[in-house]
Amino acid sequence: MEETLEKAYAIKDYIIKIRRELHKHPELAFQEEWTHNFVSKELTGLGLNPVKKNNTGIIADIGKGKEKVALRADMDALPLKEETDLKFKSLNEGVMHACGHDTHMAMLLGAAKLLTDYPVKRPTRLIFQPSEEKSPGGAKGMIEEGVLTGVSEIYGLHIEPELKIGSIRLKPGPMMAAPDEIDIIIRGSGGHAAEPHKTEDTIYVASLFINEIQGLVARKSDPANPIVISITSIHGGNAYNVIPKEVKLKGTVRTIDEDSWQNVPIWIGNTLNALRTSYQIEYELSYNRGYPVLRNAEEKTKKLLSIAKKIFTNVEVMDNPTMGGEDFAYYLQKVPGAFAFIGAGNKKKGISSKLHTPDFTIDEDALPLGVALLYSLANEKINN
Amino acid sequence: MEETLEKAYAIKDYIIKIRRELHKHPELAFQEEWTHNFVSKELTGLGLNPVKKNNTGIIADIGKGKEKVALRADMDALPLKEETDLKFKSLNEGVMHACGHDTHMAMLLGAAKLLTDYPVKRPTRLIFQPSEEKSPGGAKGMIEEGVLTGVSEIYGLHIEPELKIGSIRLKPGPMMAAPDEIDIIIRGSGGHAAEPHKTEDTIYVASLFINEIQGLVARKSDPANPIVISITSIHGGNAYNVIPKEVKLKGTVRTIDEDSWQNVPIWIGNTLNALRTSYQIEYELSYNRGYPVLRNAEEKTKKLLSIAKKIFTNVEVMDNPTMGGEDFAYYLQKVPGAFAFIGAGNKKKGISSKLHTPDFTIDEDALPLGVALLYSLANEKINN
Amino acid sequence: MEETLEKAYAIKDYIIKIRRELHKHPELAFQEEWTHNFVSKELTGLGLNPVKKNNTGIIADIGKGKEKVALRADMDALPLKEETDLKFKSLNEGVMHACGHDTHMAMLLGAAKLLTDYPVKRPTRLIFQPSEEKSPGGAKGMIEEGVLTGVSEIYGLHIEPELKIGSIRLKPGPMMAAPDEIDIIIRGSGGHAAEPHKTEDTIYVASLFINEIQGLVARKSDPANPIVISITSIHGGNAYNVIPKEVKLKGTVRTIDEDSWQNVPIWIGNTLNALRTSYQIEYELSYNRGYPVLRNAEEKTKKLLSIAKKIFTNVEVMDNPTMGGEDFAYYLQKVPGAFAFIGAGNKKKGISSKLHTPDFTIDEDALPLGVALLYSLANEKINN
Amino acid sequence: MEETLEKAYAIKDYIIKIRRELHKHPELAFQEEWTHNFVSKELTGLGLNPVKKNNTGIIADIGKGKEKVALRADMDALPLKEETDLKFKSLNEGVMHACGHDTHMAMLLGAAKLLTDYPVKRPTRLIFQPSEEKSPGGAKGMIEEGVLTGVSEIYGLHIEPELKIGSIRLKPGPMMAAPDEIDIIIRGSGGHAAEPHKTEDTIYVASLFINEIQGLVARKSDPANPIVISITSIHGGNAYNVIPKEVKLKGTVRTIDEDSWQNVPIWIGNTLNALRTSYQIEYELSYNRGYPVLRNAEEKTKKLLSIAKKIFTNVEVMDNPTMGGEDFAYYLQKVPGAFAFIGAGNKKKGISSKLHTPDFTIDEDALPLGVALLYSLANEKINN
Repeated sequence: MEETLEKAYAIKDYIIKIRRELHKHPELAFQEEWTHNFVSKELTGLGLNPVKKNNTGIIADIGKGKEKVALRADMDALPLKEETDLKFKSLNEGVMHACGHDTHMAMLLGAAKLLTDYPVKRPTRLIFQPSEEKSPGGAKGMIEEGVLTGVSEIYGLHIEPELKIGSIRLKPGPMMAAPDEIDIIIRGSGGHAAEPHKTEDTIYVASLFINEIQGLVARKSDPANPIVISITSIHGGNAYNVIPKEVKLKGTVRTIDEDSWQNVPIWIGNTLNALRTSYQIEYELSYNRGYPVLRNAEEKTKKLLSIAKKIFTNVEVMDNPTMGGEDFAYYLQKVPGAFAFIGAGNKKKGISSKLHTPDFTIDEDALPLGVALLYSLANEKINN
Repeated sequence: MEETLEKAYAIKDYIIKIRRELHKHPELAFQEEWTHNFVSKELTGLGLNPVKKNNTGIIADIGKGKEKVALRADMDALPLKEETDLKFKSLNEGVMHACGHDTHMAMLLGAAKLLTDYPVKRPTRLIFQPSEEKSPGGAKGMIEEGVLTGVSEIYGLHIEPELKIGSIRLKPGPMMAAPDEIDIIIRGSGGHAAEPHKTEDTIYVASLFINEIQGLVARKSDPANPIVISITSIHGGNAYNVIPKEVKLKGTVRTIDEDSWQNVPIWIGNTLNALRTSYQIEYELSYNRGYPVLRNAEEKTKKLLSIAKKIFTNVEVMDNPTMGGEDFAYYLQKVPGAFAFIGAGNKKKGISSKLHTPDFTIDEDALPLGVALLYSLANEKINN
Repeated sequence: MEETLEKAYAIKDYIIKIRRELHKHPELAFQEEWTHNFVSKELTGLGLNPVKKNNTGIIADIGKGKEKVALRADMDALPLKEETDLKFKSLNEGVMHACGHDTHMAMLLGAAKLLTDYPVKRPTRLIFQPSEEKSPGGAKGMIEEGVLTGVSEIYGLHIEPELKIGSIRLKPGPMMAAPDEIDIIIRGSGGHAAEPHKTEDTIYVASLFINEIQGLVARKSDPANPIVISITSIHGGNAYNVIPKEVKLKGTVRTIDEDSWQNVPIWIGNTLNALRTSYQIEYELSYNRGYPVLRNAEEKTKKLLSIAKKIFTNVEVMDNPTMGGEDFAYYLQKVPGAFAFIGAGNKKKGISSKLHTPDFTIDEDALPLGVALLYSLANEKINN
Repeated sequence: MEETLEKAYAIKDYIIKIRRELHKHPELAFQEEWTHNFVSKELTGLGLNPVKKNNTGIIADIGKGKEKVALRADMDALPLKEETDLKFKSLNEGVMHACGHDTHMAMLLGAAKLLTDYPVKRPTRLIFQPSEEKSPGGAKGMIEEGVLTGVSEIYGLHIEPELKIGSIRLKPGPMMAAPDEIDIIIRGSGGHAAEPHKTEDTIYVASLFINEIQGLVARKSDPANPIVISITSIHGGNAYNVIPKEVKLKGTVRTIDEDSWQNVPIWIGNTLNALRTSYQIEYELSYNRGYPVLRNAEEKTKKLLSIAKKIFTNVEVMDNPTMGGEDFAYYLQKVPGAFAFIGAGNKKKGISSKLHTPDFTIDEDALPLGVALLYSLANEKINN
């Protein structure tokens, strides 16, 4: 393994150059045109044959045959204005690779370079996927266009600046939540603020709703099964003396287990029906299912862990899932595989940012570790 | 008027002796046997002919004819242990005249003495009524037994130690609330406190209920119409690790206006139905109507006020009703009349207690004022 | 009185013409330029000498001397788009006389015409006041510029389409609330919606606040003293997966009694402090005092009522105040007077709109009644 | 293994006889006198030398030397009135082996019989422990009296009628919660229910508290770390018209992770302090720590699982901990070991009750499986 790590360090400049170029050119979900062309050109340069999938996505195979190992990177950026001082800062004002998908692509291209320079026996499929950030996610379309045909296992990595460089973290079974989205409108007749009894007070009812759904989390949900219901947006009314006719809410529901996934929409509906009974409001509830729960296969997790121990200094098996969501979950519904977080934080270097923030940065020294891991995952025997 | 007041002061010792004797012998609602006998004997001593009404109640007429002026006192005491140092403290352990009905009877007997000593032209009816404290109240039965026959106006007084001696307070129209009583049982399956999701958490649902009904008061009720909903008793569960199968609530609802009186039971029912929808509890609601709103007649209030100005140093017309209840309201539904609070507090003498407390006391100097008022109310012409 | 009413009916066309002209040219608070010129010209036409006050306001005296009777009309319109089919609909898109101030000015000009045609002994002051709708109100500035000098009583009317034509409604003492305005910002660190424990959930805390302040109304406020706290605007957050850093609230507080006026800001502050303790949020509270309570003087109310009985078919003494606010309250702090609602609804004619709505209309037959009342108020002796 | 299972089945009658005898004589925590004597006599009958520990507890060693395997059974019953039709129903009215400790002792005595009949190489220590049900639990005292001296691993079983016979369930790491107990008194001045503003409404404040602590669970706690806060008892007030001076609450807090265990008392304190700020109540909070989290050692869990696979038809590794508590946790703080639930439900036989209920029953056919497991755990080599 030391050998693989050495090979990865040897191409560190290449990986970082790629990453910075991508970082300068962030593109929103399903608009990854520049990215598509850039990645395709790199793959062609490595002697590979990139094939367009799901609009801006790409696959490229190294070696032929069945029982392919698939390695996936996501491509899209976020609608955030970058606030770093990096020389390779976003050139696309208001768009930023703040979730590290630039590093995911760079690591996958690094692994591609190693795999072409030092071929392995098993065939590998590289998957560059658009739109991980935006529901329903690009993974679905990729699968529909057949990118998993002939694939018998799949792996993905996510950079994580809240985790120290040299660390890797994953767990078998459910590791990331199913993130659903809700939109609610609470409607009443509105009226003069001095005469609440002549109105249905939509803002008061919205406050009861927001309060009571936390009771659902705490009282109706099995405490051993983590769930989150967060109302993240509320808008209603403008004047000081008018009770508004409607209040609009947005939020997210995160579940891991099947029961909760089934029950939360019913509970939310019951709560709204109850408020209709007690306060005579009307409502609209739009409950939109997001990605499924991300479940790492037991055996593939073991494989990844055993390889990771040779590359990373700190290998953590998580006790509990995180409540974040990831459309890599769709691939894992079809073929066994594993997803992992790799550390890229470095407090000594002052790198301790968070994903999805305008000052997101990483320690680029983490990239060769990811490249070595991806290469090694492809280098394993079929029946590991 | 000075003359009337002088006459009242002249029998002050008699009034106080009566009051203290009654204070020593408090009896609970509808158990006023000793009281009945004592009052009857006094009336007989004055040459009057007491007639038993509604078990322990009494009426006695002074003069004959129609268009009688009725004067009413209530007779019952409260289930409280007296904690005063009075020489004439309750001899009936656990029962106490803590609402001053002893003083009401003493003032009415004082007025009877004046009315027999100094007869007036108009016929007067003295009404001694049992059970003012306990729903449905003794007034109802008195009326059913005909005590208002031939009566064209009626008056009642209530002693008030929170009001300074020399003061009197009343208002035309609605002056005291309709006090209803509620009993609620919230039922669920109960279960282990570590597994709330397998139960319906009756205590949590009770807390939502208690919280939400205050929202009814603040949001669904016309702010100009005073209402009170108070939950005054809650009992459920014993162990640390068992969610109980039921929680029992008691409370009171106080309303002044007809709309609120009609609506509150519906609102409470809606709130409970809503909790059944959202938390699958079952419930029992028992909503028991109490006394009606006490409404002073406009003209009789004026009469009382104009007399009171000659006796009291401070005559207040209340801006708003109080939320207390009083079964004198039943008489006022049948004949016009007025009810008033008379002050018996005296901070200089250290008398500043509250009704319904174990240390209730009054300044007995207030009693002749009440006697003078009652006598004068009977002494007016028919068409005042 | 019939005579006065006849005189008012005789100039009905004049009153209506004036009203319609004003209705076509609504202007927002303190921008009443066109209105100022129009009213001034009318007053000059009546032989009076209009004097500019408080920017766009006007006073005009009829007769000389002290102990003037002042009659006041307000001048401003509302930022609403008129949705009626009236021929004299607003020509000023987005601005509308939806609170009837056009009718108030027309009635006062009608009274001015009668007072010049049929002079009375007592001197009268006409007050046309800008900006009743917008805090701090135009009344304050008018008073500061001396419009009450020499005035010994003052009256104002408000048209009310929810009240039947021929009706008038008022009460002695407190009749309209003190309307305060609140602005609150609740602040936290914000963060990912899947990780509520790493944030202070500003929307959840806002919901607790909205809920708990209604508890203040229902539990901490004397039920006999009406108060209203309405949160009328709430804004925070945009994304589905981000807990926002702040939530902004607006609202109004309405009180009648001094205690409540003093206490509510303290209670609201306590509630916010409590949420800071339990949920570690920060907050800004801006509590802005509005108009004082409008208190009709006892004697002037009697005067108005006794005149009204000769003009209106239905004269109501309100049991309770309304929770609306009115800057006429400032005048009543300085000189005794009375304010009244006069009916202008007519279900037979299909006129049953509400103040402050885009389809506000009135039965113009109500206007001569108001004119007769205003004229008669000025026509009374000094010591009525 | 079949051999061990055969040996266990061969003594089934003995095990069941023991179990039924114990079931007939349930005794409350630290009162296990009859039980102590019965178990001691059985052990003596097997040629062992029972030693009294922690009042009514017992240890007995089989074989000598260090690196003992300890096997533990708990002894106490619950204060419940048995409602079954069993022939061997409780003879001790109001006390019942409703948590199956009778079966735990019977299985351990069965294992003792096998271990004496078919000796194993490693020394074994049998631990019969009093008072598992009642905080602080008997385990603590047993440890203080040295029962773990010379012990290098420890195991315990718990019967579970909600789990099918033939099943066993456990997990490595945290498996059962730390159960703390809380007692809270909320105090106010009390007063008349018609005048809530003159009191601090203790029942209303209690309802706010119960509501808000569920917000702590849902919003302040890491969703991935299960916690439970249940208020299980609430008592305050008796009359319909008196707001009580105090409300008493009991409840339980269950946590698994260290952070939550540290934080919940702080959060609850903050919530009460907040209510003191907003509603001027006073409170007493008594927060009593219970057993620690029960953590199965990784290696011992593996050992138990590998043995269990030969005895049980359904071996489950739990995904999540349960929120129940168990004082076996104290032993596991000192020496590595494992605790497991073994199934004793049988729907075909109509056995599907719950622990801690008056109709608790089990399928006794489950007992030989437990005996075989305990024997085999002792029969392993030292370094398994």
